[in-house]
Amino acid sequence: MKRIYTCFSPNWYHLFAENGNTVAIIDILRATTSICAAFEAGAKAIVPVGSVEDARKAKDSGYILAAERDGIILDFADFGNSPDAFTPERVKDKVIAYSTTNGTQAITMAVNFKKNIVIAAFVNITAVSEYLMKQEGDIVLLCAGWKDRFSLEDSLCAGAIAEKLITAGQCSTICDSTIASIDLWNIAKTDLFKYIEKSSHRHRLKGIASEEIIRLCHTSDLYKVVPVWKNGRLEREG
Amino acid sequence: MKRIYTCFSPNWYHLFAENGNTVAIIDILRATTSICAAFEAGAKAIVPVGSVEDARKAKDSGYILAAERDGIILDFADFGNSPDAFTPERVKDKVIAYSTTNGTQAITMAVNFKKNIVIAAFVNITAVSEYLMKQEGDIVLLCAGWKDRFSLEDSLCAGAIAEKLITAGQCSTICDSTIASIDLWNIAKTDLFKYIEKSSHRHRLKGIASEEIIRLCHTSDLYKVVPVWKNGRLEREG
Repeated sequence: MKRIYTCFSPNWYHLFAENGNTVAIIDILRATTSICAAFEAGAKAIVPVGSVEDARKAKDSGYILAAERDGIILDFADFGNSPDAFTPERVKDKVIAYSTTNGTQAITMAVNFKKNIVIAAFVNITAVSEYLMKQEGDIVLLCAGWKDRFSLEDSLCAGAIAEKLITAGQCSTICDSTIASIDLWNIAKTDLFKYIEKSSHRHRLKGIASEEIIRLCHTSDLYKVVPVWKNGRLEREG
Repeated sequence: MKRIYTCFSPNWYHLFAENGNTVAIIDILRATTSICAAFEAGAKAIVPVGSVEDARKAKDSGYILAAERDGIILDFADFGNSPDAFTPERVKDKVIAYSTTNGTQAITMAVNFKKNIVIAAFVNITAVSEYLMKQEGDIVLLCAGWKDRFSLEDSLCAGAIAEKLITAGQCSTICDSTIASIDLWNIAKTDLFKYIEKSSHRHRLKGIASEEIIRLCHTSDLYKVVPVWKNGRLEREG
């Protein structure tokens, strides 16, 4: 049976590099949520950009640029990291360069390890879980975290995905991080929005993101999109 | 009010190095449990040794050597990493060199950051929590983990300590790892031994450590010792 692992931060990923060819990247607040929103709004592709410098180059070379650091839109970007910024008017049929504090860094890193990459969030949780069930080999759930630290909302989503795959008889786990994530998810799931009131990033975003956006980021199955890495960028699966 | 942080692995510690001058090191299976057992049995001091090579040098220079890798006693050591190996006959009034897979590495690392170091485990949890309450400044609970990964039993002990300090009105937290640890502890505490049946290291130790020893490692308040770093080694506080 396939094994499922949870990596709590990009800076632990090297420890998990041998543990599976499929990597689901999770950054609930807000990169992977927004990537799903972008494809739902009709984006053609997303090019993750690591550094601020590379974000500026992408803008200069003609890309539409979505970019933030610490929750704040970069001044030369077209828009920032909020899922509601990715409107059909802005993104339909477009290729977007995208740079964030944590999430796009995690994607760039997993690309360097030559893994099959899929974008996971609460907003596409059933669709992405079904995609993961169809993949061969073991799976790593890679939480983007906050500046390399553990983040509650990302691990909760990892726990929710792991529970779906294990309950479906598709995976087993021997990974303490996965066991912990599932147990935390089972505490949180009856009132997820209330639970994540505790999370530090939730508070970091106060004044930056509205309650409505935070709530959207923790809502399951708003979208059916499954963004995957192909042709050197993120595209919609299928 | 003092803040309390939880670091899930030594290889994250640099992220927490600014977060407090007192570091409680936790390696339930088995280094910090055994260090408490050694002082309870009358050891004078413990010198943590990082590498296998340094362990051999310590032995050659006349120290009593306790040393293991991956749960197995090193062949040139006097004994290994099991708390019941630290008997009064072996350790009373002696200085012991000690080298393990995870725990002693974490101690050596925290020493290099020039922190106040204290050894924490379930076996001394009330004593060490009372010690922590008396310290000035913020506190980091440093889990030794397993080869740099998250470990369930260490984070449970961190959660138990954090809960004691917060309940006593001594600390607050804004750290997601601490929040998660407390919630996991609250799931586990009604039957800790049953809960940690799930942990991966628990299974790694099957055939190496007896049920009785594993149970001892998860028993609260067997000892009142508080090992701390002073005079370039671990000594009993007070």
